[in-house]
Amino acid sequence: MPSFGIIGSKGAMGEALHRVVDASGHEWAGGVDKGGDVAGLADASDALIDFSAPGALQTNLHAAVGAGIPIVIGTTGLEDQHHAAIDSAARAVPVLQTGNTSLGVTLLAHLVREAAQRLGDDWDIEIVEMHHRRKVDAPSGTALLLGQAAAQGRGIDLAANRESGRDGHTGARARGVIGFAALRGGTVAGEHSVILAGEEERLTLSHSAENRAIFARGALKAAEWLLGRDPGRYTMEDVLEL
Amino acid sequence: MPSFGIIGSKGAMGEALHRVVDASGHEWAGGVDKGGDVAGLADASDALIDFSAPGALQTNLHAAVGAGIPIVIGTTGLEDQHHAAIDSAARAVPVLQTGNTSLGVTLLAHLVREAAQRLGDDWDIEIVEMHHRRKVDAPSGTALLLGQAAAQGRGIDLAANRESGRDGHTGARARGVIGFAALRGGTVAGEHSVILAGEEERLTLSHSAENRAIFARGALKAAEWLLGRDPGRYTMEDVLEL
Amino acid sequence: MPSFGIIGSKGAMGEALHRVVDASGHEWAGGVDKGGDVAGLADASDALIDFSAPGALQTNLHAAVGAGIPIVIGTTGLEDQHHAAIDSAARAVPVLQTGNTSLGVTLLAHLVREAAQRLGDDWDIEIVEMHHRRKVDAPSGTALLLGQAAAQGRGIDLAANRESGRDGHTGARARGVIGFAALRGGTVAGEHSVILAGEEERLTLSHSAENRAIFARGALKAAEWLLGRDPGRYTMEDVLEL
Amino acid sequence: MPSFGIIGSKGAMGEALHRVVDASGHEWAGGVDKGGDVAGLADASDALIDFSAPGALQTNLHAAVGAGIPIVIGTTGLEDQHHAAIDSAARAVPVLQTGNTSLGVTLLAHLVREAAQRLGDDWDIEIVEMHHRRKVDAPSGTALLLGQAAAQGRGIDLAANRESGRDGHTGARARGVIGFAALRGGTVAGEHSVILAGEEERLTLSHSAENRAIFARGALKAAEWLLGRDPGRYTMEDVLEL
Repeated sequence: MPSFGIIGSKGAMGEALHRVVDASGHEWAGGVDKGGDVAGLADASDALIDFSAPGALQTNLHAAVGAGIPIVIGTTGLEDQHHAAIDSAARAVPVLQTGNTSLGVTLLAHLVREAAQRLGDDWDIEIVEMHHRRKVDAPSGTALLLGQAAAQGRGIDLAANRESGRDGHTGARARGVIGFAALRGGTVAGEHSVILAGEEERLTLSHSAENRAIFARGALKAAEWLLGRDPGRYTMEDVLEL
Repeated sequence: MPSFGIIGSKGAMGEALHRVVDASGHEWAGGVDKGGDVAGLADASDALIDFSAPGALQTNLHAAVGAGIPIVIGTTGLEDQHHAAIDSAARAVPVLQTGNTSLGVTLLAHLVREAAQRLGDDWDIEIVEMHHRRKVDAPSGTALLLGQAAAQGRGIDLAANRESGRDGHTGARARGVIGFAALRGGTVAGEHSVILAGEEERLTLSHSAENRAIFARGALKAAEWLLGRDPGRYTMEDVLEL
Repeated sequence: MPSFGIIGSKGAMGEALHRVVDASGHEWAGGVDKGGDVAGLADASDALIDFSAPGALQTNLHAAVGAGIPIVIGTTGLEDQHHAAIDSAARAVPVLQTGNTSLGVTLLAHLVREAAQRLGDDWDIEIVEMHHRRKVDAPSGTALLLGQAAAQGRGIDLAANRESGRDGHTGARARGVIGFAALRGGTVAGEHSVILAGEEERLTLSHSAENRAIFARGALKAAEWLLGRDPGRYTMEDVLEL
Repeated sequence: MPSFGIIGSKGAMGEALHRVVDASGHEWAGGVDKGGDVAGLADASDALIDFSAPGALQTNLHAAVGAGIPIVIGTTGLEDQHHAAIDSAARAVPVLQTGNTSLGVTLLAHLVREAAQRLGDDWDIEIVEMHHRRKVDAPSGTALLLGQAAAQGRGIDLAANRESGRDGHTGARARGVIGFAALRGGTVAGEHSVILAGEEERLTLSHSAENRAIFARGALKAAEWLLGRDPGRYTMEDVLEL
């Protein structure tokens, strides 16, 4: 039975991971937080799962490479130099970096890419998401990830074709834009719908998360999947064999 | 069998009214458009239905008062002087003016007012609507009507508590605001949802229109309901006895 | 600060109540389970909340009456003799018995009753619910409660006008029936939608529960509301002042 | 500009086709109904679209083969001998036969097949549909088509794993079954949702039709797509290049 080491173990995602690892029957090699002994954790683990912070990334990658074990990186807010460090580590060990570890969202993005490609821009694409009242930015990172998938399906650039926060005298909808709307309220863990609206018919592809355990569960599944792989940089799509 | 006269008979709503009057088995006294003989139409009708333009309102009210018959006014874009003219005419004949003649939307607004009142501002209110790609403004007039109902239920002023088109770094949701989001795409006739999101539970009150016939049908029902009433100014709520 | 005693404290609802009472800042007088000292608990509490079993009801009511304190009864599966015992106790202390302690569901039932009454049976009513894969009966008790509200609104008997589990060659929909459909899957805590479908328009009134804490929270709110009331039998509608 | 001949031109689908062909700017070679001159129509057309009846199929196929033109067959209720006749005709001309000509539904079925395959039976599949009050059977043919796609994705037999019309004491959900629920009411043209419910997350893939014009539009697109193809038997999936 493999054992997993959690970096950022006292954050919200770290705590969710503890619960999911416990419930799964897997072993938990331990957890570290800011200033902890990551190298020691790596030596005791079969794989690392990192939900800490960009500033700790280099240290965490070194620990994985030093121990020769895979690492899953769910940290957000990464910049170019972080991606370069990941690419470098991926020459030595298996690394999976992702902005969203949910299996359902990963599959949804894949389906959205396919639908957008097949239907073309006769069909208008709108993405609407709802999150709890404490969320401070809009649209959500997952909504943008889904918009990116739609843009890829159509072969266009999202930044140049994005319309968010429609309000006032907007004029008729421009052909080809991808629209975003953000709802906030209550304690909603996260809901996303991608609507493709054509002539007198509509496709809606949605994901609903009951709580953040799904992100922990997906990260754990990703870590399991990395065990025994060749060095390289992987994605959640690889885990689902999409 | 009463007969109805339609003012603005060649507009989109006028044409929908023709079809609905035909299908209902009612008689249709005729229709007039810009420059037509409204007084003559009023003399031949048991009630008038006006979907023309604010500029024609005074003439239309005079015709109804002259013939001593009720009038339903579905024209939008009315200003203070138009409302004063309506109040004046309502001393002589029954007048029903409304921004939305749908029975379903009228009832929905009533339910929203009640829910907002009972639940208080521990529950966050969000209103999301979707319309076809040719619609040029956001949020829709019906969304604002529903927001108004929610604000009334809470005893607050909508204008001072309205948040529309959320985008970017918004910060956490402010307590008590009523949020609006607008989706545009395809040929959607009109969908509105009012979401009340509390601690770990959510109420959603929605209306979906298949096409604009529902507005014609509601206007006809309103005209029937006005027959034989005392002079006065009425609303769609009165028709539904809310 | 009032303190509350929980009967059935180790059941799923009892545990949810503990968490909610803790989070609310209220005090918890203690809890008892099968064979425990309910009378002692009642003496130490300002109100009792009972989520135990019908067989314990008589003892629990005696304890509340003996201590002269209110009691909330969320136990399900009550029969005529239990209701008679409740009526009897309600002559001495305030008693609130309900099949669903959620504030949102209580309000939804009220809105459904009103909508069904106003719209009449030109509008078809369908109730669809989704629950987790372990639920063993269909439709849910809450779906039936909502159907009951719709039937009351229309002034009809639900049992004589109920259609559940439509399948095969059903023929056209009979006017006036109230339809039920049950979805099962995953870990869904509970979702209910009441659809009123008219000519080319539709109203949908929905409730979504994220988890069972909402039932605990509603029970606690009901217990607070009972403090200081006159003896009598109350409902969740009373708590919401519906 | 190609011209199309419609067989079954006075049925509901035939009339929808007339409107769509007119609006599309295509030419309409004419239409025939029971007892009409199909061979003459075929000679005047670039392709045939057949929404008549199984009894007329052989005649219609002969006409297409005689004229050497493609034929789209949207007739439902076909049996083995009809499919054999189609296979035979497809050796001479391009033939596309389908139970649902909507592009949106065709794509949805494809996405459902893919999702069911990737997620496996840890995720429960439920299919819910709503149609107007006059529909006499349940579940809809389209719901069954979507269920078939899900079953194919999982590599199971739908008939042996289908649960429809859940009602009463059902016990816990059996692993691997595909559930169906049917809602009926009002004038709803057709809505279908396929829900994949996993541990604490859910995917929902939906299609909504505003009216039957979408089936006519898809049939016309299929006919256009067949022009100039090699003889053979094609599907709507081929039209969408799925």
